[in-house]
Amino acid sequence: MNRLRLLSLLLVLSLGGCASLDMGKLRGTGDLGLVIERADGAVQILETTGNSLLGEVPGLGDLSHASVVYSRDERYAYVFGRDGGLSKVDLLTRRLVKRVMQSGNSIGGAISQDGRWIAVSNYTPGGVRIFDAETLELKADIPARWGDEGRLSKVIGLVDAPAERFVFSLWDAGEIWVADVRDIDHPQIRKFRNIGRNPYDALITPDGRYYIAGLFGEDGMALLDLWNLDAGVRRILPDYGKGEKKLPVYKMPHLEGWAIAGHYAYVPAVGRHEVLVIDTLDWSLAGRIPVHGQPVFVMARPDGRQVWVNFAVPDNDTVQVIDTRSRNIVKTLKPGKGVLHMEFEPRGEQVWISVRDRSRVQVYDTERMELLKEMPVKLPSGIFFTDRAHRIGL
Amino acid sequence: MNRLRLLSLLLVLSLGGCASLDMGKLRGTGDLGLVIERADGAVQILETTGNSLLGEVPGLGDLSHASVVYSRDERYAYVFGRDGGLSKVDLLTRRLVKRVMQSGNSIGGAISQDGRWIAVSNYTPGGVRIFDAETLELKADIPARWGDEGRLSKVIGLVDAPAERFVFSLWDAGEIWVADVRDIDHPQIRKFRNIGRNPYDALITPDGRYYIAGLFGEDGMALLDLWNLDAGVRRILPDYGKGEKKLPVYKMPHLEGWAIAGHYAYVPAVGRHEVLVIDTLDWSLAGRIPVHGQPVFVMARPDGRQVWVNFAVPDNDTVQVIDTRSRNIVKTLKPGKGVLHMEFEPRGEQVWISVRDRSRVQVYDTERMELLKEMPVKLPSGIFFTDRAHRIGL
Repeated sequence: MNRLRLLSLLLVLSLGGCASLDMGKLRGTGDLGLVIERADGAVQILETTGNSLLGEVPGLGDLSHASVVYSRDERYAYVFGRDGGLSKVDLLTRRLVKRVMQSGNSIGGAISQDGRWIAVSNYTPGGVRIFDAETLELKADIPARWGDEGRLSKVIGLVDAPAERFVFSLWDAGEIWVADVRDIDHPQIRKFRNIGRNPYDALITPDGRYYIAGLFGEDGMALLDLWNLDAGVRRILPDYGKGEKKLPVYKMPHLEGWAIAGHYAYVPAVGRHEVLVIDTLDWSLAGRIPVHGQPVFVMARPDGRQVWVNFAVPDNDTVQVIDTRSRNIVKTLKPGKGVLHMEFEPRGEQVWISVRDRSRVQVYDTERMELLKEMPVKLPSGIFFTDRAHRIGL
Repeated sequence: MNRLRLLSLLLVLSLGGCASLDMGKLRGTGDLGLVIERADGAVQILETTGNSLLGEVPGLGDLSHASVVYSRDERYAYVFGRDGGLSKVDLLTRRLVKRVMQSGNSIGGAISQDGRWIAVSNYTPGGVRIFDAETLELKADIPARWGDEGRLSKVIGLVDAPAERFVFSLWDAGEIWVADVRDIDHPQIRKFRNIGRNPYDALITPDGRYYIAGLFGEDGMALLDLWNLDAGVRRILPDYGKGEKKLPVYKMPHLEGWAIAGHYAYVPAVGRHEVLVIDTLDWSLAGRIPVHGQPVFVMARPDGRQVWVNFAVPDNDTVQVIDTRSRNIVKTLKPGKGVLHMEFEPRGEQVWISVRDRSRVQVYDTERMELLKEMPVKLPSGIFFTDRAHRIGL
């Protein structure tokens, strides 16, 4: 009976070992992603080969304004919550691996080029904190002190850039900082002052060269060429902003939504029913495309042939598709109230759209611009696919 | 004893179930890749987070001229061998899943935008065959018949393009064909004739818009705008080719090695010790950069800031790095004889180089342009990382 008991024990242990894999059987991770369920503080894991939902991971806190980056192996998602929580989610086992409350109020984050560091930009206390991607241990703290009194500024527009750098903007200070984290114990900070009043969000071009901050306090944008820091910050796009009329702005556009197709950027106008076309060769305005409402996200299909646009209330039931060759609107879709986000599959054949008020995510064929599938997700907002791991500035 | 035997059996079965995972424990696949071991008909699986070799998969036939594409989930590699073999390799279990001899002599392949179809271009019999990515079952056969006698042409320069298309060139016929495989049972072929003599290789721009074939039989290149097929094929870059002097060409450059940085393309000159700079806005020659030998691969770091170049014999012990802002050579490296291929990590912080004659792969930090690590691989040639799954035209 001893042998029987031993064998029984071994059997239980070995089956247990296998069972631990049941939530995450052996599979590739290149076609995974997640949707933020904002009301529940949860994420829904998904896959884009069969277009299906794989399961929910709860316990991520306040996700009313959440963003996500991925580990370089595309296994782990780092979720930045509004409440300052930083959560590491295993897409394979569908478990919350670790969660740290890293500040009182956070707005977003980034992962370093080599995948070793997770940076979070904070409102309170204002600054950037950098964590080990493996352990979420705090590695560096960069308080955003500015001015004679050394007050702390809210930090926004945090992105990764090549050569192991993070770039971010200081809302209160009107500054852009470039942090070199090659030596994580001694981050080297280069500060650019007087870049304009109240930068509210920023983007980096897909090649990681140009960092551009939108200004809430004035028109125009602040551009920094990361290939030539000595040239300093210059003002571009004098037409970009709320303008003289000071139109009511229902939702400030997300600048991460800038779409670059060929050498033109497609940009949400602030407060106007327009998408602006910018020539990135000289950063001049190359055109204005009238659209259905105030654009929020303006996103290029990965091949740059189409640009998809969603809108602020009261027009957030609509998505429009612009053909970038003709600059015409070629399709107007009505997914339903509360279209909050869109994410293209890596090579662009399909796009996922979250429709909050209907608690649905939808998948469209981008060539035919037709609905392929609809799935139930509780009050979905941001959608993030793992291919972001391989992109600069995402 | 019956229970004992039953338990023993269960134990063996369950351990066996787990053991089948030992070669591939649960892990992400975004940081995986492989190196071709050309002499052994094997591939060496690798990972780029810790920079290590994971194990060899043999039995892939003649890999003297091999290329690789990846499944959209980044789990499976499809290896196209010179002998017409198409092999599907599981990177997680490190096993050869399936292998079909699909022709007598093959040159390369592509995977459709949606990941469902694997296309192979063949010399003998000349044409393209399309296989189910899941099962490797033959789904479509496109013989490259041309001219009045309906002879078969060798096919080269096969790439995937958006909207579920494959594009390829006919060496003997001087034609470019665009195959729409939305309906795999009835591929729709559009043929462009008289595009120039003997197209020997081709490339597609990273946005999937321009297909460009090099011509062995004359100077210049044939360009097809896939956004505007009705405009037909036009001749560009009259200086591109062997030229009047008919220099000896030790190795025809690989056109997949074209580097596009900003709106400039960096291109290996044929037979000359030069890298050409092409302005992609009008496809004119914008500059010539003298280099160490006859360039073979001219590859842009993913951010476009650097271009790395290797060379044909007798200069194949050298790699040079061009800074794209100044167009100067900023580094000359001597990895050793037989530098055959280079592959950048997805966000560009490191590059892997195969040094055949030393049976080594090397990893360099691209910012410092310094050797980080060297690993033994038997006569390595092509290096391919899984992030190719997410790119158009790779």
